[in-house]
Amino acid sequence: MAQLRIALAQTNPVVGDIAGNAETLVEWTRRAAGRGAHLVVFPEMFLTGYPAEDLVLRSSFAEASIATLSEVAARLAGEGLGDLPVVVGYLDRADLAPRVGQPKGAPLDAAAVLYRGKVVAKSAKHHLPNYGVFDEYRYFVRGDRLPIFRLHGVDVAVALCEDLWQEGGPVSVVAEAGAGLLVVPNGSPYETNKDDVRLELCARRAREAGCALAYVNMVGGQDELVFDGDSLVVDASGALVARASQFREELFVTDLELPEAGAEPGELGEPRHEAYDAHDGTVITVERVLLSAAPVEPYEPEPPVVAERLDDLAEIYQALVTGVRDYVRKNGFKSVILGLSGGIDSALTATIAADAIGPERVHTVLMPSRYSSDHSITDAEELVRRQGVHAQVVPIADIVSAFEKEIGLTGLAAENLQARVRGMLLMSLSNEHGHLVLTTGNKSELATGYSTLYGDSAGGYAPIKDVLKSVVWKLSEWRNAQPGRPPIPENSITKEPSAELRPDQRDTDSLPPYEVLDALLRDYVEGDMGRDELVAAGHDPELVTKVIRLVDLAEYKRRQYPPGPKITPKNFGRDRRLPITNRWRECPYST
Amino acid sequence: MAQLRIALAQTNPVVGDIAGNAETLVEWTRRAAGRGAHLVVFPEMFLTGYPAEDLVLRSSFAEASIATLSEVAARLAGEGLGDLPVVVGYLDRADLAPRVGQPKGAPLDAAAVLYRGKVVAKSAKHHLPNYGVFDEYRYFVRGDRLPIFRLHGVDVAVALCEDLWQEGGPVSVVAEAGAGLLVVPNGSPYETNKDDVRLELCARRAREAGCALAYVNMVGGQDELVFDGDSLVVDASGALVARASQFREELFVTDLELPEAGAEPGELGEPRHEAYDAHDGTVITVERVLLSAAPVEPYEPEPPVVAERLDDLAEIYQALVTGVRDYVRKNGFKSVILGLSGGIDSALTATIAADAIGPERVHTVLMPSRYSSDHSITDAEELVRRQGVHAQVVPIADIVSAFEKEIGLTGLAAENLQARVRGMLLMSLSNEHGHLVLTTGNKSELATGYSTLYGDSAGGYAPIKDVLKSVVWKLSEWRNAQPGRPPIPENSITKEPSAELRPDQRDTDSLPPYEVLDALLRDYVEGDMGRDELVAAGHDPELVTKVIRLVDLAEYKRRQYPPGPKITPKNFGRDRRLPITNRWRECPYST
Repeated sequence: MAQLRIALAQTNPVVGDIAGNAETLVEWTRRAAGRGAHLVVFPEMFLTGYPAEDLVLRSSFAEASIATLSEVAARLAGEGLGDLPVVVGYLDRADLAPRVGQPKGAPLDAAAVLYRGKVVAKSAKHHLPNYGVFDEYRYFVRGDRLPIFRLHGVDVAVALCEDLWQEGGPVSVVAEAGAGLLVVPNGSPYETNKDDVRLELCARRAREAGCALAYVNMVGGQDELVFDGDSLVVDASGALVARASQFREELFVTDLELPEAGAEPGELGEPRHEAYDAHDGTVITVERVLLSAAPVEPYEPEPPVVAERLDDLAEIYQALVTGVRDYVRKNGFKSVILGLSGGIDSALTATIAADAIGPERVHTVLMPSRYSSDHSITDAEELVRRQGVHAQVVPIADIVSAFEKEIGLTGLAAENLQARVRGMLLMSLSNEHGHLVLTTGNKSELATGYSTLYGDSAGGYAPIKDVLKSVVWKLSEWRNAQPGRPPIPENSITKEPSAELRPDQRDTDSLPPYEVLDALLRDYVEGDMGRDELVAAGHDPELVTKVIRLVDLAEYKRRQYPPGPKITPKNFGRDRRLPITNRWRECPYST
Repeated sequence: MAQLRIALAQTNPVVGDIAGNAETLVEWTRRAAGRGAHLVVFPEMFLTGYPAEDLVLRSSFAEASIATLSEVAARLAGEGLGDLPVVVGYLDRADLAPRVGQPKGAPLDAAAVLYRGKVVAKSAKHHLPNYGVFDEYRYFVRGDRLPIFRLHGVDVAVALCEDLWQEGGPVSVVAEAGAGLLVVPNGSPYETNKDDVRLELCARRAREAGCALAYVNMVGGQDELVFDGDSLVVDASGALVARASQFREELFVTDLELPEAGAEPGELGEPRHEAYDAHDGTVITVERVLLSAAPVEPYEPEPPVVAERLDDLAEIYQALVTGVRDYVRKNGFKSVILGLSGGIDSALTATIAADAIGPERVHTVLMPSRYSSDHSITDAEELVRRQGVHAQVVPIADIVSAFEKEIGLTGLAAENLQARVRGMLLMSLSNEHGHLVLTTGNKSELATGYSTLYGDSAGGYAPIKDVLKSVVWKLSEWRNAQPGRPPIPENSITKEPSAELRPDQRDTDSLPPYEVLDALLRDYVEGDMGRDELVAAGHDPELVTKVIRLVDLAEYKRRQYPPGPKITPKNFGRDRRLPITNRWRECPYST
């Protein structure tokens, strides 16, 4: 057996900031060297950030990624870090003639091994995900290699993200080719319970590959996606060895004892190639590279770390906080602004924002109307007191009257007007002072279209757009139960929900009780069940018909909604795409 | 040689309306029979409408498509139309086990041959487009068949849309398999000059296949896409035989003289299968079916029709009119509303709307502010007079003052407020009266972010969002030059553009002259050129840097923009996907 100390760089790159990400790479590699690591592994597409979408089709962007990779290899060597091999994801290009349907420039979702000032091996993702939030057939051509480099006597193979999830491809040839360790850079977005799926997957692939597996994921928010970290190491039997924290940047160091490789794979600079059947109709070329043949001198390993897992609500809360924090920071905002209604949605949104960037950078506006109840002001004021966020009061009655003097509005149009006046006030204050407007709508509203276009749906980022109303309450109670003073007024949690756009209005005037609605939405939207399945699952048939129609009709509104952090399998963002013009919703047998 | 009279059903299906589309199929088949046709061909995914996006993943939707196909075959026979074979696109499912990355239910973009009450042959698209406006790896699995049915002694092969555009696959085996006619159902969206590309493509494929080719396309609008018809027939040498009109539903009948097939391909009900190398790493199964062996009795052919082509501006104008008409109709609106500023954008939008649905269904609102010039009212009133659209005047000064009484706004925030008050007035009137709000912004504004979020960008459909300002002027002049009274006041065309949100404002205060800007936008946005290429193409380097930054920064605003008809290769809708959080725009070497 041979020892290796590996460092998984669970980092937070910024999409498009190639220079900044390269700087982070050098800094973290220096820290890994300081920790005595023998190998450091960065996430998928780390140099460019991920997902970079259409940027990968731009030649200047691809060329900058490729050039920066070589520069950073040289720079590491120049700074005395050349002997510490670095595995890092970047954007490369395949040498393919253009053809119809092939992404422009033939981009590769690639990984490289940097060593002694050079790029000594390259690989690229073979399986391209094109479902859910992923559209990678638009962006990449597939890789067909599995690099295996010998480091201190251990053969280390490199594969990328989706290659773990699908059958066949590079991971399927590891066992036959023989390796002591498989390292996998990832850009794997969070969703509830994904950590369980991930661990099970890594364990299974390690057993299939017959070697230990080190999985490194990025952390941080990128528009609708939140990456949760959760990097981990399993041994060849699939048993968990070490696991990093969730939602935090971390240089995660683990000592491993790995099988020493056999015959000599060739000299450095003369890689050896072998072809393997990839069990998916393609052929994978294994490229063997020698970095160092002799095992390291025996040393005392550090005890492996298995970070404690967050419970489900803590995990969701952290995902939302991470989403807000990074959207604010990466887009260059200094502060946020939101309307406080005294209700639970805006109370939770304000709390998430204060936890993300500090209460001193959170501005709230209380916008009472002629229909606002007393508690809508007192509950909002109580939250302001508890959290120390900024607050101002702007009554909307006179503005609403000014509109009504010019045009006659009744019913829903009059209700929407009030929501729109509030949306405009927030947008105006945002324009005047540079705050990012946070939208406070929840997923139950978004699903059923229970919101006003350009009213309560206005803004730049929507922290709880993927959180069902019943989960909004649970998260609020969970947050209040954490150490310290409960930030959310109890009355905001316990009172009956109302939009307060007409006298004595209740959400239940228009919608079923949220526990009934949310169970149905979960099955229809997240579970993709059809009408018959929903009825068979015990949902009321009339309600099923009504809610399916509401959800399908609200597609236009949802398309106009700001982005927000995805926490469920379907968040109405990138991964659910209904036509707007769609008569199917009106069919009696519609699902 | 054998004669055949083929009818291409250049029709306008509605997405999701399977029952309605089936009704259209029966009606048009009856008409084709009345015209003495021997074969009728409908477009791609005709039964379901196209593109149906996530609907194809719903089992109830797929099952309805499959069931309706059989029902309609039986119904045709029941109505005495069974002897007229029908080729029609529909949604089918492959019998594949689920696996990661495979669309749920394994949907097929299929075509069937209906004859004597039965589905006698089936095929499905082999090449799945996943670029531009298409995301078909999300939705379909690939087909691997080429049906060839013998009809009145002629072997007729069936392939689908993208199979013409890419190399290899079913079309590549037609020559070897032998056919007298290749029929191709399509759902091919309009873009400028696509008709030329299409004809050249059909001619090339006909020569490769060694047989005549009949191309049938749908017409009509579906959200961002407009289908232009332009169905056509070429002979085996690639020469154009007949061509249908653009943007109009049409049962297009053509008499062809085609080679008579040789040996007997088997009895009806016992299809014969042969395997061919598809020249793309796959195998295509040719399925031969006999419908009728004997040629028809010789008859006097009708002279072939080649419809006159629209010139470039007429074509664009028709695309916009078609987009508006179908978005209104298919979404169940009775009328539209828009703000008339006296400027050219709203004047052209109103004119398109009046041409699409009639002036009596077009409502305009004149919303003068304290900064509006006299001509903004007089020019708008002149348009109202010329076209006979509805008009009302709603001054915004008092509403703006009511806002300013509550919060202090300066500069851009004050300008945006005026645009937002107008947007809210339109949305309120829409809510009160049920009109669809048309957004009047053009592509130059959309590209550079020269618009107000929830202000002038508010609405339900944006007819000219893909039209550069310089083309707005050209279209206006073109429309005024058509027979009848010029609908657009000349002063709206000739005056200098201004948003009129502050005294003496001119667009050129913020933007370069439109002829300079538009040339650059065309190369950057539609031509996908990088910074260096743009400079090499003669654009001013400083302006290139400035405009690239503006365009990339405006991504958030564009995502909130209503849909509108696509007329160029890149319309900021489905086919250009930048990250919002994107530092690349700030790099000096950014493209």
